Amino acid sequence: MQESGQDVRLKDFDLRQAAFDCGYVELDEEYDILLRDVCIKAAKSRISSNDTDDTRIIQAVQALDDIDRNVNELSERLLEWYGNYFPELELTGESLARFVSSFGSRANVPESHQMFVKASTSMGSELSFADEEMLKIFALNLCSLYDTRRHIESYIVTAMGSLAPNLSDIAGALLGARLISMAGSLQKLASFPSSTVQVIGAHRALFKHLRGNTPSPKHGIIFNNVIIKNAPWWQRGKLARAFAAKISLAARTDFYSGERDPSIKEALDRKLNAIRTANPSAPKRDTKPHGKAGGRGKSRNKKGGRR
Amino acid sequence: MQESGQDVRLKDFDLRQAAFDCGYVELDEEYDILLRDVCIKAAKSRISSNDTDDTRIIQAVQALDDIDRNVNELSERLLEWYGNYFPELELTGESLARFVSSFGSRANVPESHQMFVKASTSMGSELSFADEEMLKIFALNLCSLYDTRRHIESYIVTAMGSLAPNLSDIAGALLGARLISMAGSLQKLASFPSSTVQVIGAHRALFKHLRGNTPSPKHGIIFNNVIIKNAPWWQRGKLARAFAAKISLAARTDFYSGERDPSIKEALDRKLNAIRTANPSAPKRDTKPHGKAGGRGKSRNKKGGRR
Repeated sequence: MQESGQDVRLKDFDLRQAAFDCGYVELDEEYDILLRDVCIKAAKSRISSNDTDDTRIIQAVQALDDIDRNVNELSERLLEWYGNYFPELELTGESLARFVSSFGSRANVPESHQMFVKASTSMGSELSFADEEMLKIFALNLCSLYDTRRHIESYIVTAMGSLAPNLSDIAGALLGARLISMAGSLQKLASFPSSTVQVIGAHRALFKHLRGNTPSPKHGIIFNNVIIKNAPWWQRGKLARAFAAKISLAARTDFYSGERDPSIKEALDRKLNAIRTANPSAPKRDTKPHGKAGGRGKSRNKKGGRR
Repeated sequence: MQESGQDVRLKDFDLRQAAFDCGYVELDEEYDILLRDVCIKAAKSRISSNDTDDTRIIQAVQALDDIDRNVNELSERLLEWYGNYFPELELTGESLARFVSSFGSRANVPESHQMFVKASTSMGSELSFADEEMLKIFALNLCSLYDTRRHIESYIVTAMGSLAPNLSDIAGALLGARLISMAGSLQKLASFPSSTVQVIGAHRALFKHLRGNTPSPKHGIIFNNVIIKNAPWWQRGKLARAFAAKISLAARTDFYSGERDPSIKEALDRKLNAIRTANPSAPKRDTKPHGKAGGRGKSRNKKGGRR
């Protein structure tokens, strides 16, 4: 204690500041007794302030991804399991879970239900009481996971609306949250050049490009926005560049001013329309458009390097 | 229709049998009209009878594994998430989920609770209402997944008690169910030689052994039984052989007679005790017991092949 006290005395200014932050104004008299308290309080307050809006959103995004993965796995299990009893039921995912949790055995499907005919003529085997109960509980669990997923999603939308309104406007709340999550924080996202924002999430393709002959990736996770996803392949690179530029701008506005600025969205729309008008049809020299939806590398260039 | 009718006529006996099974006794008059119905009904009844007690148990075991995996993943997420708000809480898994779902914020922990002191002096950050609500829902979901897991487990125990009472006696209901699941059915498990039962689940080690120089694996998933797991390393191979032999016998008794036979369990206990008495301490020539719990290969033999 005493020794570490001597060490800290050297950084007297920092210590005084920390002590002041913790509410100790007079430090001289009880210096050595207080020192430990002050240090602990300072460390605690640092840890507390570590939890920002960013980290909350990042946690929520990661929880959303976890739930997505788990929900898919469990609903596949339900499909296979319940398929033994009612193979004609053409439901999957959430609708299947809701069906099983509300009816259980196909004998319980009411006449008014659209599945009644299929249920009464099904070639599936009979469902015993114990099986039915278990399947219902399993399906009910799955339903509440779907509900939780929706709840977290709406939380993210709300939280993004206050943390990063511009980013939410431009990229959408979920994609914006995912970008913050992959960058690490809003500050980091704001500090990235827009060319980096454009390829966040395309690490494999990017490093393949940096190592060798493949062309650079056109888009990372921003591909998930309809602007890029629904565009024809020859516009995607251009749209992605414009889109990433405005995302970057929005993130900076959010981080440094915090105010909502509708002009970014308007400028983006103008730019996107200009690109779409300027490139109405596929370029003629590209005779072989590759069919991949992701479009993260052009196979035609594989051997010759980039032209 | 007519043509396929002619084809099927060749297998008249089968068809008559199927028709009889489906309740058509007089077949001659309406032969061609009935043919299609009979074939469809026969196919349907085949599909229905495909769902046996075996497949139900197998589905339940797989659902259990799915839930285990998902519950682990989601509880890790909860640990990380809630750790921001209450890092001093030393709970994990189910107890953490129950804690979060019942209290939410650490401000709600009552004075009588053992965590009260930690909760009131925690260095975690404050929990807003929206965050608290979301975390509570997430934790509640996790709790009900734990409940479902327990429900499925007790279902397996009950179902195994009626399908394979001897196997449940010898190996335990869950391990027995897992063996049936890995073999494919009780019939298949009964047809395996006990040396195969001994290494079910140790495919990697077995094929490594068959390809090259490593020794054969001593046990597959039967290692999960306390008989093997809690034994000292020098007894494990011998115990596993005796255990697998009785599992095999139990599976055959279950499949072919279906009656409970307590003598198998007694014979197993006698045999295990004999092995334990005959091998009280580590053999002297094995100077280097390998520390791995699984013990699926002896490293000392790596170069020289099996002696």
